[in-house]
Amino acid sequence: MPRLVLHRLPMAHPADLAALAALLEAGTLRATEISAIIGKTEGNGGLNDFTRGYFTQSLMLLLGRHAGEAPEALAARIPCVLSGGTEGVLSPHYTVFATVPGDGAGGLAIGTAFSPPTPPWQLGRQAQVAAVANTVRAAMAQAGIASPGDVALVQVKAPALQPAALRPQDPAPRSSAAGPAMAYSRAAAALGVALALGEVPAEADLEAALLSDFSLYSNRASISSGIEVSCNEVVVFGTAPGWAPGPRLAVRPLADALDLPAICAAFTAAGLPAAPQLAPADRARLGCVLVKGEPDRRGTIRGARHTMLGDTDLDPQRHLRGALGGLVAGVAGDGRLFVSGGAEHQGPEGGGLIAVFANG
Amino acid sequence: MPRLVLHRLPMAHPADLAALAALLEAGTLRATEISAIIGKTEGNGGLNDFTRGYFTQSLMLLLGRHAGEAPEALAARIPCVLSGGTEGVLSPHYTVFATVPGDGAGGLAIGTAFSPPTPPWQLGRQAQVAAVANTVRAAMAQAGIASPGDVALVQVKAPALQPAALRPQDPAPRSSAAGPAMAYSRAAAALGVALALGEVPAEADLEAALLSDFSLYSNRASISSGIEVSCNEVVVFGTAPGWAPGPRLAVRPLADALDLPAICAAFTAAGLPAAPQLAPADRARLGCVLVKGEPDRRGTIRGARHTMLGDTDLDPQRHLRGALGGLVAGVAGDGRLFVSGGAEHQGPEGGGLIAVFANG
Amino acid sequence: MPRLVLHRLPMAHPADLAALAALLEAGTLRATEISAIIGKTEGNGGLNDFTRGYFTQSLMLLLGRHAGEAPEALAARIPCVLSGGTEGVLSPHYTVFATVPGDGAGGLAIGTAFSPPTPPWQLGRQAQVAAVANTVRAAMAQAGIASPGDVALVQVKAPALQPAALRPQDPAPRSSAAGPAMAYSRAAAALGVALALGEVPAEADLEAALLSDFSLYSNRASISSGIEVSCNEVVVFGTAPGWAPGPRLAVRPLADALDLPAICAAFTAAGLPAAPQLAPADRARLGCVLVKGEPDRRGTIRGARHTMLGDTDLDPQRHLRGALGGLVAGVAGDGRLFVSGGAEHQGPEGGGLIAVFANG
Amino acid sequence: MPRLVLHRLPMAHPADLAALAALLEAGTLRATEISAIIGKTEGNGGLNDFTRGYFTQSLMLLLGRHAGEAPEALAARIPCVLSGGTEGVLSPHYTVFATVPGDGAGGLAIGTAFSPPTPPWQLGRQAQVAAVANTVRAAMAQAGIASPGDVALVQVKAPALQPAALRPQDPAPRSSAAGPAMAYSRAAAALGVALALGEVPAEADLEAALLSDFSLYSNRASISSGIEVSCNEVVVFGTAPGWAPGPRLAVRPLADALDLPAICAAFTAAGLPAAPQLAPADRARLGCVLVKGEPDRRGTIRGARHTMLGDTDLDPQRHLRGALGGLVAGVAGDGRLFVSGGAEHQGPEGGGLIAVFANG
Repeated sequence: MPRLVLHRLPMAHPADLAALAALLEAGTLRATEISAIIGKTEGNGGLNDFTRGYFTQSLMLLLGRHAGEAPEALAARIPCVLSGGTEGVLSPHYTVFATVPGDGAGGLAIGTAFSPPTPPWQLGRQAQVAAVANTVRAAMAQAGIASPGDVALVQVKAPALQPAALRPQDPAPRSSAAGPAMAYSRAAAALGVALALGEVPAEADLEAALLSDFSLYSNRASISSGIEVSCNEVVVFGTAPGWAPGPRLAVRPLADALDLPAICAAFTAAGLPAAPQLAPADRARLGCVLVKGEPDRRGTIRGARHTMLGDTDLDPQRHLRGALGGLVAGVAGDGRLFVSGGAEHQGPEGGGLIAVFANG
Repeated sequence: MPRLVLHRLPMAHPADLAALAALLEAGTLRATEISAIIGKTEGNGGLNDFTRGYFTQSLMLLLGRHAGEAPEALAARIPCVLSGGTEGVLSPHYTVFATVPGDGAGGLAIGTAFSPPTPPWQLGRQAQVAAVANTVRAAMAQAGIASPGDVALVQVKAPALQPAALRPQDPAPRSSAAGPAMAYSRAAAALGVALALGEVPAEADLEAALLSDFSLYSNRASISSGIEVSCNEVVVFGTAPGWAPGPRLAVRPLADALDLPAICAAFTAAGLPAAPQLAPADRARLGCVLVKGEPDRRGTIRGARHTMLGDTDLDPQRHLRGALGGLVAGVAGDGRLFVSGGAEHQGPEGGGLIAVFANG
Repeated sequence: MPRLVLHRLPMAHPADLAALAALLEAGTLRATEISAIIGKTEGNGGLNDFTRGYFTQSLMLLLGRHAGEAPEALAARIPCVLSGGTEGVLSPHYTVFATVPGDGAGGLAIGTAFSPPTPPWQLGRQAQVAAVANTVRAAMAQAGIASPGDVALVQVKAPALQPAALRPQDPAPRSSAAGPAMAYSRAAAALGVALALGEVPAEADLEAALLSDFSLYSNRASISSGIEVSCNEVVVFGTAPGWAPGPRLAVRPLADALDLPAICAAFTAAGLPAAPQLAPADRARLGCVLVKGEPDRRGTIRGARHTMLGDTDLDPQRHLRGALGGLVAGVAGDGRLFVSGGAEHQGPEGGGLIAVFANG
Repeated sequence: MPRLVLHRLPMAHPADLAALAALLEAGTLRATEISAIIGKTEGNGGLNDFTRGYFTQSLMLLLGRHAGEAPEALAARIPCVLSGGTEGVLSPHYTVFATVPGDGAGGLAIGTAFSPPTPPWQLGRQAQVAAVANTVRAAMAQAGIASPGDVALVQVKAPALQPAALRPQDPAPRSSAAGPAMAYSRAAAALGVALALGEVPAEADLEAALLSDFSLYSNRASISSGIEVSCNEVVVFGTAPGWAPGPRLAVRPLADALDLPAICAAFTAAGLPAAPQLAPADRARLGCVLVKGEPDRRGTIRGARHTMLGDTDLDPQRHLRGALGGLVAGVAGDGRLFVSGGAEHQGPEGGGLIAVFANG
């Protein structure tokens, strides 16, 4: 029986894989056991954040040496989902999701899949929605997750428009501005997940709904986008009979960026009581925390004006990650969290999602 | 008997005094009753943050019209302590501290005082430490607070070095770089408070300790600095026999930027139970929250590396305010908080302080 | 006969009017002689740049004291066109355009006019285009400029969308995002100038052309926008029989951000030979320099990729002002220049305009 | 006879080596002929700019494949001097300096050398000064440059303090703050060059002079620092009998950031007349342009206040590169320039240096 294990590792800079190298050299982990990597690097999280690509290149070089395979082949098979931006108390780190032999049944399963390459003009279009939905289904199949109801969380890394990649003969992209282009890609991936999981009506005009009808959303999707990937990389977590019991996973929607009760509830549901902060012993069992949120586009939070959307000097997502990261880190007592802005159609408008993985 | 009352008011931009104007015009509040103003504006919080001066100018024009006094005279008497920077979920606002007639005794007292003008070369020197200590004592006397032990909190607005104000014939300042100059001024004001309150030995070489010996600090000082003031403006809160019962104040040190338990404890001690978030009814009684914190200069928080101090694009204090603001706002369920970075000698190293005022 | 005179004055910070106060107190200049103010403050130049409003408030307070008039009345009559952003070698300053008695005829004339208040939903619409065109005509009439062909330059300060000013019952604005909203307002004002000057066909659908058809533009418009104004403030310069000879003005389009030959040509045409840099004696005669430019939205300049449009940390207009300011300042040998980004429909696409005023 | 050739190549992003790969695959250039790489990447140019390391890793992977050597071995032999920051009109690019067979004598020579690894506590100390001086001498010897007087330019890439690399048992660094630490390293490397070239007295206390006595400087040093290197990498250019004639090089000091005459003089001296802008035919012969400059630390340029040093949102070097880059690009008619801030002891205070390489 396969069993999922998590290794949350620090990085001293975006090309620092020393902690993983040590595990591989010690034989604690084999390169061939690695299913996916999800992490935070210390770039600005925007279009011109190259720390994600730098980490990915460095990671695949390391794994290539250990697996005896070409780095390019590994990069085409192992999702490497990085989110840039460790504002405030957040700490650069990455979690290695590996699959090892285990005993028992009905545990937490992981499945991964890659969509075909997505050309720039398909980003934020129905073609991307459909491609992501199909890729989610493929990842479920790989994991042996039978029903959408058994899926707990879908993490996607979607391509961002790279203006330099546009050729004159190509169709125009949905938006050529950096921020909106990234947002459309995240939105299409989110509704692709929602479609695969049955959270939105199959007959809805999802392309028209993107960044427009925020009543349509997924409560189980976490999406990042970046120029370092050229297709939609999907990681699905859920319950499947063929998996040995491993980490515990709890996922909760966030109503807004102040939803401390939901955050505490997610930790507690994962077996890590937050009253209000994790006890040190429980903190040691923290496997991985994924959080999505967004600057409320209506300009206020619980009636109070925020300034995230009109700041010429500081990107809205940098604002948001700092604040939401500070809140979740206070509960966890730990800044090694995956907190990502841009939660379009990932949870209710102005809100988002939290997923907590706890080791046994 | 005087009684302290608090009005926490929103601002639509740094020159928006409409909410206060409405109170003055309705007669709810008289301009002559105003003891001090403490607020957050939406600038960057640094040397070139002019939103603080803009608010102050606008405020004094309004009060001048209502009090029939010159704005300059009011500005020289009413402390106006503004901190720039409403990163993340923080919301621009200001709290008016007013003194009205009341009944009873032993309530929360307010006292204010201004130091003589502080020339640039005295910033971060023993002269500023001593001036602040003397001004704290004057504010205590004004409030009728008999003993340092009865002081709960001292808020100071200290001058920042304005390079354009330096004349060739003047002594060199302690530092002419923007960030360090502001830090030295905050540090000197903090140890000035500590000296007045007996928190540091009277014989210590405090000038030598500034930004160097972080074992010396005050647990009751909250300091901001800015170029919009030319002397140290001091507001002291504490218990005094001659004051009618008014708001409740609880002050707690923060051990680090993740100290959620201390934050919850401060709200609860002020009569606003945080379990983990304030109930809506209690939220309505929230009078004012003042928070200080800092990016830990050792580069890690609870063993995890943070990136606040080496970010070329985002100022460390903007990082910090976003994170700590997000955490406290999650507990309060409200972003209208005074959260300020640069907590040198204001609480333990890497930590800070929280003060919660609750209305009855 | 009226004669135009220019005073270019330094500011130590956005509320520093000491240089103007000295002129007024010395009697060198009377407050009632002031026709318009055009200047640069040191904010970020974006939606949340409050240095412009702070300067304006401070200026009108000073002029009110000297003119014996209410500051609000002066602000409604004297255009105060400020552009935020003194990146790189640019220096905060302002030019006072005053009208004094003189002799002779056919000199440089100034005319000013204000449009009616422009509500948010009219920004970037035909209504704003028409309002600006009418206001340009009114300013020409005030100056006694008979024909559009005699107009040399039109400087406009147009309102920017202030999200907090939107009321639920109002029509939706053209864009509610900060950057695009400012761009639409500048674009509409530019084509309003072009319409009044006959540079675009009267029958063109100008609303449809905004930020879309860049073949339509004015070669004599310089537009800034900001939340500190609520109507379109217009200053027109041109030749008129009823004006005594005063400063010399030369205006040239810029083909792109590297158009050094055009820059040199403008200085030389104004009587300040640039070969390549102004001689010190000529530099002393420099009256005012206005420059508009923009980050080429096609992503390249003369075939080389630029990175201004995809930088998450640094606003495109801050990028542009720094570069174009550095270039023009090198020619002038002086950083006290009005350089402003966002040259939509103000000169050819990717280019802009330079206007040089030289004193005799 | 060796002959120096230059290839100036574009990059679409920091890991884009396609242009060099094409030259290598076409046989136009052999990997073993490459002496050094000098380029600009699009990061922020500060401590947390990882685009430099990402480019270097990608470059060495490519060269390793073509040279049949380990990337690490190549990185230890071929200087790769990258400067982050393409503000304004600057364009990401890199120049490959290669050595090929040629005829004739007395041409422009290139020599390279690496110092031993420089531990953090040696940065900004006499040890680094001496190490750089020795490395310059070694590079001169490699090139066959007989006398310091024959050296035209020395380009150094010096290590920057990487806080995570500090171990508790190590001596404290000269400064642990990001900006000052980078500045001390550049300063020490600059005076190391000055020492080797005899531009400063051999007996001077150079450690004491760093960032303090700006009367000591080199007129032929261009220094960048970054965390991606761990020793001082040196590239020397000069005239040597054993080299075939190749590109022409002109180097001029810049008196300040407005020194347009010196910039034009450097281009003209390199055989590319600037009157004021290069003609298109000459532009095609432009080989490489290196420029250093700095925000004048006295706060003014030619008497006008600048705001580069007190901007909380925009790093001083980003300010400077945008402005100086805009000026030089205007002369060149081309944004593919190496413009780097932080010119401590590299030219007169507040100034810097320009070096122009022209192909025949």
